[in-house]
Amino acid sequence: MDTRVSENQVIESKLDLSDLSGAALHRFATQLFPICRSLSGPGVRQTLAMIRERLPDLEVREMASGMKFFDWRVPDEWTIRDAYVVDPQGERVIDFKTHNLHIVGYSEPVDTTLSLDELQDHLFSLPDQPDAIPYVTSYYSRSWGFCLRHVDRLRLRPGAYRVRIDSDLSPGVLNYGEVLIPGESCEEVLLSTYVCHPSMGNNEVSGPVVTTFLGQWLASLPRRRFSYRLVFVPETIGSIVYLSRNLEALKRDVVAGYVVTCVGDDRCYSYLASRLGNTLADRAALSALSELAPGFRRYSFLDRGSDERQYCSPGVDLPVALVMRSKYEEYPEYHTSLDDLRFITPTGLLGGFTALKRCIETIESNRTYKVDCLCEPQLGKRGLYANLSSKGSADDSKTMMDLIAYCDGDHDLLAIADRIGAPFARLEPIVEVLQRAKLLSEVPRGGVMP
Amino acid sequence: MDTRVSENQVIESKLDLSDLSGAALHRFATQLFPICRSLSGPGVRQTLAMIRERLPDLEVREMASGMKFFDWRVPDEWTIRDAYVVDPQGERVIDFKTHNLHIVGYSEPVDTTLSLDELQDHLFSLPDQPDAIPYVTSYYSRSWGFCLRHVDRLRLRPGAYRVRIDSDLSPGVLNYGEVLIPGESCEEVLLSTYVCHPSMGNNEVSGPVVTTFLGQWLASLPRRRFSYRLVFVPETIGSIVYLSRNLEALKRDVVAGYVVTCVGDDRCYSYLASRLGNTLADRAALSALSELAPGFRRYSFLDRGSDERQYCSPGVDLPVALVMRSKYEEYPEYHTSLDDLRFITPTGLLGGFTALKRCIETIESNRTYKVDCLCEPQLGKRGLYANLSSKGSADDSKTMMDLIAYCDGDHDLLAIADRIGAPFARLEPIVEVLQRAKLLSEVPRGGVMP
Amino acid sequence: MDTRVSENQVIESKLDLSDLSGAALHRFATQLFPICRSLSGPGVRQTLAMIRERLPDLEVREMASGMKFFDWRVPDEWTIRDAYVVDPQGERVIDFKTHNLHIVGYSEPVDTTLSLDELQDHLFSLPDQPDAIPYVTSYYSRSWGFCLRHVDRLRLRPGAYRVRIDSDLSPGVLNYGEVLIPGESCEEVLLSTYVCHPSMGNNEVSGPVVTTFLGQWLASLPRRRFSYRLVFVPETIGSIVYLSRNLEALKRDVVAGYVVTCVGDDRCYSYLASRLGNTLADRAALSALSELAPGFRRYSFLDRGSDERQYCSPGVDLPVALVMRSKYEEYPEYHTSLDDLRFITPTGLLGGFTALKRCIETIESNRTYKVDCLCEPQLGKRGLYANLSSKGSADDSKTMMDLIAYCDGDHDLLAIADRIGAPFARLEPIVEVLQRAKLLSEVPRGGVMP
Repeated sequence: MDTRVSENQVIESKLDLSDLSGAALHRFATQLFPICRSLSGPGVRQTLAMIRERLPDLEVREMASGMKFFDWRVPDEWTIRDAYVVDPQGERVIDFKTHNLHIVGYSEPVDTTLSLDELQDHLFSLPDQPDAIPYVTSYYSRSWGFCLRHVDRLRLRPGAYRVRIDSDLSPGVLNYGEVLIPGESCEEVLLSTYVCHPSMGNNEVSGPVVTTFLGQWLASLPRRRFSYRLVFVPETIGSIVYLSRNLEALKRDVVAGYVVTCVGDDRCYSYLASRLGNTLADRAALSALSELAPGFRRYSFLDRGSDERQYCSPGVDLPVALVMRSKYEEYPEYHTSLDDLRFITPTGLLGGFTALKRCIETIESNRTYKVDCLCEPQLGKRGLYANLSSKGSADDSKTMMDLIAYCDGDHDLLAIADRIGAPFARLEPIVEVLQRAKLLSEVPRGGVMP
Repeated sequence: MDTRVSENQVIESKLDLSDLSGAALHRFATQLFPICRSLSGPGVRQTLAMIRERLPDLEVREMASGMKFFDWRVPDEWTIRDAYVVDPQGERVIDFKTHNLHIVGYSEPVDTTLSLDELQDHLFSLPDQPDAIPYVTSYYSRSWGFCLRHVDRLRLRPGAYRVRIDSDLSPGVLNYGEVLIPGESCEEVLLSTYVCHPSMGNNEVSGPVVTTFLGQWLASLPRRRFSYRLVFVPETIGSIVYLSRNLEALKRDVVAGYVVTCVGDDRCYSYLASRLGNTLADRAALSALSELAPGFRRYSFLDRGSDERQYCSPGVDLPVALVMRSKYEEYPEYHTSLDDLRFITPTGLLGGFTALKRCIETIESNRTYKVDCLCEPQLGKRGLYANLSSKGSADDSKTMMDLIAYCDGDHDLLAIADRIGAPFARLEPIVEVLQRAKLLSEVPRGGVMP
Repeated sequence: MDTRVSENQVIESKLDLSDLSGAALHRFATQLFPICRSLSGPGVRQTLAMIRERLPDLEVREMASGMKFFDWRVPDEWTIRDAYVVDPQGERVIDFKTHNLHIVGYSEPVDTTLSLDELQDHLFSLPDQPDAIPYVTSYYSRSWGFCLRHVDRLRLRPGAYRVRIDSDLSPGVLNYGEVLIPGESCEEVLLSTYVCHPSMGNNEVSGPVVTTFLGQWLASLPRRRFSYRLVFVPETIGSIVYLSRNLEALKRDVVAGYVVTCVGDDRCYSYLASRLGNTLADRAALSALSELAPGFRRYSFLDRGSDERQYCSPGVDLPVALVMRSKYEEYPEYHTSLDDLRFITPTGLLGGFTALKRCIETIESNRTYKVDCLCEPQLGKRGLYANLSSKGSADDSKTMMDLIAYCDGDHDLLAIADRIGAPFARLEPIVEVLQRAKLLSEVPRGGVMP
């Protein structure tokens, strides 16, 4: 707990963004939270509309139900208006209006009366977390059901239960949003998040909230080396549709990317590697987290669970990793009503934002340089080095000299930071000084760089 | 001792081969045991004849004494009929007829009388193992000698000893046997064992016995992906002759191979690496032993001692490793009369057989696949995945999804098993399911595969 | 301390060089010690002249002040004749004549009277080592100063101090010496040492002393495989000048090299890696030190501090490492008057000499061989192997067989020593035996070898 506090303090002290505060992030999360999102339907469109208020260039696409993308087909669109269960005494014992997790996602319309035994087959609760409503969906096979707190389920008495689900499950569209924030290079950094879960905090709204704010921050920058592509998709089917429509361009342009999810609580920081590891996204993530939160947790691609499953799949193989707070599936509140607006916090969201911002800054700064002279440059005549060489005085220039020693056109800055055991952040100002002194030349990235 | 028992139980429970039982293996060992084998001579031919009863296609070759193969020349053929030492009291104190280890291999004919002191120069015994007759040979320099238990040697009293060795050492032939069990591919797996030691168990008969039974098992299979070449040679000179005559074809065709020796006791399992390590033979051996006997012992090529010395020599470099029970040179009974039919056991032989069978099955199954779609396939619509995605239910399909994630045309199944931390055996049924679902395509091995 | 003694004993017992004794090394150190060297000036020339007495082919070069080499310019030449400070009582409290460390290197001429406060700005002492005179220079910015023992500084009382520095700082030359000891190949081993510090032991005279003796030893050899280039330069500017004038040839010819410094005390042995590590110089150093002094200290290139900074710089990248006794900057006496003729010892110098000699011998012997036959050669018929193969007798030939097993034309002897876990020294006589038996052929180094 102590470490958590100090971690966040460190992060906040590095941030100076007037309206990009933790409070602002949490306010936006609070706006998005109540919407009943699912794979498709009005909840997704409403969410994308609220994001477009902050990112006006966001384009919202729609794909008709039944269209095929790779191995998948867009399912029917789902609209949920109301859903409840009335007990023998006439009381609404389960009511979608009180919490949208009560309805199993993609439940078909129902209007019937059942015995308790028959009803039980359609109920989901968690005996181990009796006060949590679980999150359940059934996208690809027709079904219906209700989720409820286990304590409430135990109170149900035998008798006739009236069940009503006022939903549509019929051909419509699947929506997703996309915005490109252009930079100097046509090479891109991809940020992908999902907009398909109902009222949950860390494992839903934290992703679009932080991604939106990263977009606002990126758009506010006077210059960007790379272009930034922000994608807001329903998980799995959305990223598959997106990849199917844009694969060639993505494979050509994306130099690094992150799936943005679970970036809102303040328990810990987490990193999940890309399929083959060691991409630029992985290296920047490891560098950023080592600086911001050295105790972060490392997960392998075997622990994957979100859209990295698609972005890193064989033949797609985009350089996509994850930087998270508490990783999906790893915290008890995951996929339940306990993952709410209290589970995500202003400092938690700001930490998630800051970690990803730091990854982006690292990618922007991670150039490859070559010293412009053979042998060591004479730093003294440029005022970059203590003129009087005596015992001890050499220490200050050590990092500068080490940096120069590995600016050989092969090591990029991330590799140099690793080699010389210096934080990446310490290299950036030194590079600036050396460039001003005309001692370093940038080695272009395969000719694509500006 | 407890582990030994349970290891063998595990192995036996995996076997279901009616006449390939441990008892059958030990019976054949008992038949081969009494023959007085050496580098050449009738013992080798008799052994090969008994193997041909089980592998009728075995071809027996003969090379004339004096022929040159690489740096070596086929030595004269040795026939031993009788050999004994009679003490001053007229008693046969050493008698070849009671144990064929009593005669030094390749002893020249002798018929003389010596003092005890003169005789001592020709006697070999083991002070540390006073009840064991050692195994000694002198193939490449003319000599003669007797081996005896040290306790018996100490009983010899001064006096005149009559020594008689009724042997021939004269131009003849060197024999070896070879059989090819063809498969769908002309690529081959090589199994090489030796047939040149007199009555010893683990370090002689276990090798030809297990190799013969592997041949019978392979021949009984309805299909084989690879062809199998079984070679029964006198150690060292035999494998050198064999390599010399077949080098080009072996280098072209052999994808993996094992020297089969010391596969009969039930103390432990052992693996000895090929010269450069990491060949298909090494990888399959490590996978098989990790499954069957996780506590197996690992030896480096520096611990080599059998025909891997030739198969892995520079310029030959066949992908040949060893899977053994107690490794030669590492057990006290090695190269003595204590390495007998009690030292090798039915469970010991069956374990050796099963481990090599498992290596072969692994090599047969170790294909390289590529998922047939981009992004994850939709397992749900194929009934391969729980349709209802809720907390916890994803666990069952984890290995399937991990396998798919690394079926990228680069990782073969052995590499995938390593990456995803799953036993190779668990991947095989999953591959079958996925192939039936037409989700995987095999990537051919350099165009040679069927 | 005990280990130190035994280490040196081991080393001495391996040496048999009549006039290359530790005493002789220390005598030459004693001759070089009193000279007041600096970057330039008569001290350097006097030192080079004394080296030329032992290496008559040494050529002394001179570069005019102001000439540009890479990023550097040759500074003015400095001559120091006298320097002292007289206290208010008329006593010479600091006197260059008593110790040449008293004057800051490159001090400009001064003839003035100052208050104690004004004088203090020009004084250097070490509060933590109150009895040591520190070593201070100011090569590239005009300045002056005195170094003194801190105990003496504390005794200075307020009043008027007369300061006199009788020096010249004006256009002249920078000198360095160079000698090539030709070998059979035009490929070269580079030994570079520096001749620019005043009276210090380990961090000055040990370098030129050991390098000179190595040169004498090399010149005395009946044959050398490689040519040897010995370079005596003022540190930093000297190696930069040298590289600037000879870069193309050095990059073409140098196969390995060492900066020779700090090779005179007897506390420990040290190794400092080249920039990218794993060059022939690194591998030979690691092999030599593992044999001579297994407890040696390993330093990374990040700990660099001498002319390896230039030789290993990006784009220069010569294969240059360091083998030292106590590494510069790592012992308390470093850069003070305590690094004197007692700090370096006959056994210390002989150890440094022997370690580098062993590196050179290793490089000379480190050839790549290929066995001349396929499969194992028959050692028995050549008398290289016990003819009677019985339990235990195989041990003696083990290293020979292991060596042969890896003489595949890819592994050089250093790589083989590593692989088979044998000291390099043990391989050399075996290679000789095998070559006499015509079993090994040398694989030429990229066609350049004799």
